[in-house]
Amino acid sequence: MSILIQNASALSPQGLLQRTSIAIEGARITRIAPALPARGVDTVIDAQGQLALPGLVNAHTHLAMVLLRGYADDMALQPWLQEKIWPAEAKLTAEQVYWASLWGCAELIKGGVTAFCDMYFFMDEVAKAVEQAGLRALLSYGMIAPKPDDKVEREVGVAEAFAERWHGRAQGRIQVALAPHAQYTCCDRLWERTLEVARARKLRVNTHLCETRKEVEFCRKEHGKSPVAYLNQLGAFEAPTVAAHCVHVDGEDIDILASKGVFVSHNPGSNLKLGSGVAPLPKLLHAGVTVALGTDGAASNNNLNLFEEMQLAALLHKGIGQDPLAVPAPQAFELATRNGYLALGMEGGGALAEGALADVILVESRQVHLEPLYCPLSALVYSAQAADVTTTIVDGQVLMKERQLLTINEAHVREKVNEMANFHRR
Amino acid sequence: MSILIQNASALSPQGLLQRTSIAIEGARITRIAPALPARGVDTVIDAQGQLALPGLVNAHTHLAMVLLRGYADDMALQPWLQEKIWPAEAKLTAEQVYWASLWGCAELIKGGVTAFCDMYFFMDEVAKAVEQAGLRALLSYGMIAPKPDDKVEREVGVAEAFAERWHGRAQGRIQVALAPHAQYTCCDRLWERTLEVARARKLRVNTHLCETRKEVEFCRKEHGKSPVAYLNQLGAFEAPTVAAHCVHVDGEDIDILASKGVFVSHNPGSNLKLGSGVAPLPKLLHAGVTVALGTDGAASNNNLNLFEEMQLAALLHKGIGQDPLAVPAPQAFELATRNGYLALGMEGGGALAEGALADVILVESRQVHLEPLYCPLSALVYSAQAADVTTTIVDGQVLMKERQLLTINEAHVREKVNEMANFHRR
Repeated sequence: MSILIQNASALSPQGLLQRTSIAIEGARITRIAPALPARGVDTVIDAQGQLALPGLVNAHTHLAMVLLRGYADDMALQPWLQEKIWPAEAKLTAEQVYWASLWGCAELIKGGVTAFCDMYFFMDEVAKAVEQAGLRALLSYGMIAPKPDDKVEREVGVAEAFAERWHGRAQGRIQVALAPHAQYTCCDRLWERTLEVARARKLRVNTHLCETRKEVEFCRKEHGKSPVAYLNQLGAFEAPTVAAHCVHVDGEDIDILASKGVFVSHNPGSNLKLGSGVAPLPKLLHAGVTVALGTDGAASNNNLNLFEEMQLAALLHKGIGQDPLAVPAPQAFELATRNGYLALGMEGGGALAEGALADVILVESRQVHLEPLYCPLSALVYSAQAADVTTTIVDGQVLMKERQLLTINEAHVREKVNEMANFHRR
Repeated sequence: MSILIQNASALSPQGLLQRTSIAIEGARITRIAPALPARGVDTVIDAQGQLALPGLVNAHTHLAMVLLRGYADDMALQPWLQEKIWPAEAKLTAEQVYWASLWGCAELIKGGVTAFCDMYFFMDEVAKAVEQAGLRALLSYGMIAPKPDDKVEREVGVAEAFAERWHGRAQGRIQVALAPHAQYTCCDRLWERTLEVARARKLRVNTHLCETRKEVEFCRKEHGKSPVAYLNQLGAFEAPTVAAHCVHVDGEDIDILASKGVFVSHNPGSNLKLGSGVAPLPKLLHAGVTVALGTDGAASNNNLNLFEEMQLAALLHKGIGQDPLAVPAPQAFELATRNGYLALGMEGGGALAEGALADVILVESRQVHLEPLYCPLSALVYSAQAADVTTTIVDGQVLMKERQLLTINEAHVREKVNEMANFHRR
């Protein structure tokens, strides 16, 4: 399979390249140059009036929760979880997770997301959906075992078997991570076993960390340490780790995250909506932490729109810190692209460059809300919408063209998902 | 002119009406009921799979600044103003303001905004654009006169002459307000004259208030009072007033705003981007202040997207106050609709009801990022994009249908605006 994108304005690491061509062979970008020949190319895409950029990365989500989008909003965290989300999740079937995951993939593709990191259950179903949709993903089964009982081995067993079946599958598009759900839901023994398996199988770790003030206070009371310090003492960060949230971290925590090379997924939309707070993004970045962006599940967002998260990341910290220089547009863009690929451990992603992964999106820039187009990066971060994405290419395969999904039957999945959502209304 | 919208899901004050018809005669909604007859109706719109709702209101903008969208970003406030925005504005011509205003109208219509409040200069050009575009607007010439010299009467003269020419024009769609730019840019004499003219002509007042910490500190030092208290003492709030921003207001200020019935335009996107801070929206609402939403100019936003402001208003205060119950979706929706019309003094707007102004928009809800659609209000506030708007009707005239502008030649205005934007690149 070869693809040639013509007449694009390309956001490359060298800056904006006007009227350029991007040649893709197999899974890689092979050439970026003006007016490359179209002869013999399988698919030619005219990108006149469009910006070409690396695909966006959703570094933290629970994909199948699109089924619970808008199911329960504007509630306090505990009743939201205990009365709404957990009972609904307890009823979810494997089939529902499959169709919901496909629906989530459809939303990611439409919004220009090319790679994502997921933590949920019935993960084989999620993996099947990802394989079919053509996306790139780091998938993980969320392990929960608060006590050092039999459940520890059962959970590790499920996670390890999933890794065995799926790690490296779909031409390498699917990678598997191990996911102890969080410090407060997993006993020391589970963390230790996670590390053993992660080392043996060379897997990443994906977890929730310091999302709420309460969990931090609880850990300090219990262990006299913050969750970050406590997990660090357990050696948890010896495996490459993606830590979601990190809202309530102090200077000492940030130093640990930086020195251990922990990747942080900043999820500003979800953290705001659930009333968790605002992560100290400028401090994390200043300390050298590699921060990516995520949406969290659609139940707490309520979408999988990385443009919104990029905009929130750029705006929020300016306002709260009363510093208009915080998180400028190029940095917000880097969080959503390059840093996302780094967090997911997918080398060669996140940049439009020769030899890079062929994960490319096109954004229609000839639009009323984006013109005049003085600065494409500003337009993307401060003004673009997910609906501006026209084309999504992952691993050298076109997943969406002219806003039409090519790997997912949208009408059919819609029907399935809406039918299943009716179940939850009862 | 009569319009019949069929098969809509309508967000009425009585809740969601499924499969309903909305009949419009002239400038008013005349009937809302299932299956109204289409015979003899001029325009029939099938709204299957769409939500019908009152149009959104942008309660604070500087429309023609779309010409400076992305012209200067990620700068500190003073160099941004002094080195970039003010020099660019000093070069603006009446013709540029006209075309830029049309472009701004195009963006408002595309994003489902039916009414807005503007403050700028060359206001006749803005008014001409609004008249042509078919929008509803409260327009004001921004008066600046820091000293009680001749400029006071010159500024009042410009504003009064504009009111004389345009107040009540375009079948009443255009209203004029008087706009002393801000407390710190207008001397007492200008405020007094404003009040005289506002009373004599029964006009509203539109101003900037407490946007930055600095202006509040300056006023306290100069006058021993906050800008709100100082203006109140001058009697400035005796005319109905729209005050933009109100970021740095304390409890006493909020009491004054509430007791004087001052309408506040909350502009979260711009306040964040410029590093001004976050207005205490929950406190303002708790005190009974009628708060609407605005984008501010596109130079500091960078768009005129009320969906983004609605989402920010709903999310921001949950996160900052660590209170997931702050500003629930129905309240954010009310700020963007009903409160907007109240702020602009346009009676009968902001609700889908019989007898109300025929300012109606349709939002495509059969979309991947909005389904399953458990709760339309949640979907609109937490997940919808401006691009989801398909149809915009103002004053009983269809301004956009199937995402195509009907009163503005988009291609022609684009050409003009991009040509003019090149001027500013130099």
